[in-house]
Amino acid sequence: MISVQQALHIIDTTKIVHHIKKVKISKSLGFILAEDILAPINMPSFRQSAMDGYAIIWSDNTDYKVTEESKAGDAKHITLQPLEAVRIFTGAKVPDTADTVVMQEHVSKHADGIRIIKMPRQGANVRPVGEQVHAGDKVLTEGTRLNEAAIGFLAGLGISKIAVYNTPKVSVLVTGNELQTHGKPLKDGAIYESNSVMLKMALQRFGIKKIKIFKAKDTLKATNKAIKKALDYGDILLISGGISVGDYDFVKEALDYNHVNELFYKINQKPGKPLWFGKKDQQFVFALPGNPASALTAFYVYVLPILKKYSGFSDYHLPRLQAKLNSAFKNTTGKTLFLKGYCKDGNVGILPSQQSSMLNTFATSNVLVTIPEDVENLEAQEHVTCINLDGYGN
Amino acid sequence: MISVQQALHIIDTTKIVHHIKKVKISKSLGFILAEDILAPINMPSFRQSAMDGYAIIWSDNTDYKVTEESKAGDAKHITLQPLEAVRIFTGAKVPDTADTVVMQEHVSKHADGIRIIKMPRQGANVRPVGEQVHAGDKVLTEGTRLNEAAIGFLAGLGISKIAVYNTPKVSVLVTGNELQTHGKPLKDGAIYESNSVMLKMALQRFGIKKIKIFKAKDTLKATNKAIKKALDYGDILLISGGISVGDYDFVKEALDYNHVNELFYKINQKPGKPLWFGKKDQQFVFALPGNPASALTAFYVYVLPILKKYSGFSDYHLPRLQAKLNSAFKNTTGKTLFLKGYCKDGNVGILPSQQSSMLNTFATSNVLVTIPEDVENLEAQEHVTCINLDGYGN
Repeated sequence: MISVQQALHIIDTTKIVHHIKKVKISKSLGFILAEDILAPINMPSFRQSAMDGYAIIWSDNTDYKVTEESKAGDAKHITLQPLEAVRIFTGAKVPDTADTVVMQEHVSKHADGIRIIKMPRQGANVRPVGEQVHAGDKVLTEGTRLNEAAIGFLAGLGISKIAVYNTPKVSVLVTGNELQTHGKPLKDGAIYESNSVMLKMALQRFGIKKIKIFKAKDTLKATNKAIKKALDYGDILLISGGISVGDYDFVKEALDYNHVNELFYKINQKPGKPLWFGKKDQQFVFALPGNPASALTAFYVYVLPILKKYSGFSDYHLPRLQAKLNSAFKNTTGKTLFLKGYCKDGNVGILPSQQSSMLNTFATSNVLVTIPEDVENLEAQEHVTCINLDGYGN
Repeated sequence: MISVQQALHIIDTTKIVHHIKKVKISKSLGFILAEDILAPINMPSFRQSAMDGYAIIWSDNTDYKVTEESKAGDAKHITLQPLEAVRIFTGAKVPDTADTVVMQEHVSKHADGIRIIKMPRQGANVRPVGEQVHAGDKVLTEGTRLNEAAIGFLAGLGISKIAVYNTPKVSVLVTGNELQTHGKPLKDGAIYESNSVMLKMALQRFGIKKIKIFKAKDTLKATNKAIKKALDYGDILLISGGISVGDYDFVKEALDYNHVNELFYKINQKPGKPLWFGKKDQQFVFALPGNPASALTAFYVYVLPILKKYSGFSDYHLPRLQAKLNSAFKNTTGKTLFLKGYCKDGNVGILPSQQSSMLNTFATSNVLVTIPEDVENLEAQEHVTCINLDGYGN
């Protein structure tokens, strides 16, 4: 048995080889950029009007003859003479010979043209080529998480495809003779299986698309075979149940049989003590406790960081925050506790029913309150470290 | 022109009719539950062993004969006699006549059976029927956001389908002759269109699946027609560009033509001043500024709350947080400013390049610093309200 600190140290020091793929920008939401992006064009790529108004060659004169019109998207080349003006709109190309745009509010129209009431400085309201971005500038760096703004920015530079760190394929293997799928009346002695859909949703929320569910009965042969198949599919394998020490828990033996090497087994924590983490070449395996809330706790604290590391995140743990405990708490277990809590405005309350088989408390919690193994008494108003479950999906 | 406060008041008081649909639980991630859930079964539904050990009829005797075995998932009915024991495993059915489970660590085996070294209290390690949940109990309430824990919990109750508030279908209409799709060399006078993919990603991140992109050239006829088609598809319509007062901005006229009624137009803010919000029966229309960062700001502050209200969220604004400003700031505009910032550990810095056409600053920001229209001078270390962009995807 190791401590939570030791287990997290193993997670932190586990080296993971990244996989890079090229994707269309419209398929890149949530991925981590695997390359620096250099601007392929200037922005703007032509001299652009910043206003609706009139383009002129700047002079001391106030009266100009309006010869043409240039609106956004027009490609035509207009050559302007002194004392001529071109009606122009925001975003439109400024004629090469013009150097200034007078905003329409500072102009009065008359029969032959316009009179400028308030002459701006020479060069006003003309955005020079490359004002925002010069071709060749590094505009996004490797490691950036691709959100709607980053993807829009890439589109604005005309970029269609980019290199991202691929997310892992994940196998979920559920073991247990007692498990029955929801939707049919419950058989005697059976319970409804919930961990496969729970883990699938947790994986989807993080952005994993390729997930396959496997099931195995409680025999060594079935478990050996199912682990083999699950390893054939996934980069990461999550096993639910079968890792405690009961006579009918074959998972540990079957992992040995499949040459998956143990990195740790059993953590001095509650819930989620019988957690097993191992490795086979570049595949990683977690055997999670069968109890739903234990499995989900282990997922947030240990599995998600490995998924995020694999996917190129440098900041791969769920965010931690400090909050004041609403009421005193005693930890008589000698274990690190992860307690479902609700945090608002810096104050956190520990929710009732923390049993490891009850998921509904998780449904209404937004933090996991972490109480270290060596802390016995916490007074009300003391600060505790909380794992922020709201920081999950981003 | 109205203030930000007035605009938000209109968003808050806009009534939206909800649409409810039945979905499979595996398709319900991120939706809001539209019904209270009553447990259809007891949990556990049979008397369950909490330990690996031996089931007995409690007595003063220490020696018991082992007659049978009961493992998790076994349905058979075992009738136990006094001084008999059944080998039993965690989660397995306790025989009807047994009342106590002795954990295996407190038992020694011998040729004829077992000797109990430490006798527990009568009834120990037997989970009674309905210990966690009684059939008929209200276990989840209408308004719960369905995350992996809630969905797992429903699966554990055997529930396959639930009623959720449907999310809207969204049309995105992009206007502008100057706009060109990424992937081909840029034509003279053109710019790469980025708002459609940016808005699509922002919608997808929130969980909207049904999104259709429409495009229109800058003519009244084309705009009329495109708005009609976009309204035929979507419950909510986002229009990008064409809402300022240039001679070639036809959107406002075309919205009138399509009988969309204005709820507000123009907000005393920067960026995103020329924002238009309107309604046609139960359809809502936002005409967003064409500049990408302005459009995205308007999306976070006004569009997302309407999408969330539509989808049944009671808490529909992005979370606000208070942070200390890193350095002094002057607001000489008389407008409410939404400034891209980066907040860490309660301190926030305003990022450089706040221009409304630049999206890359958004890609690295995690908050929008809000500076009210009537605040001119902010000292370093003063508290400001920030819109938390990290609270988005949940």
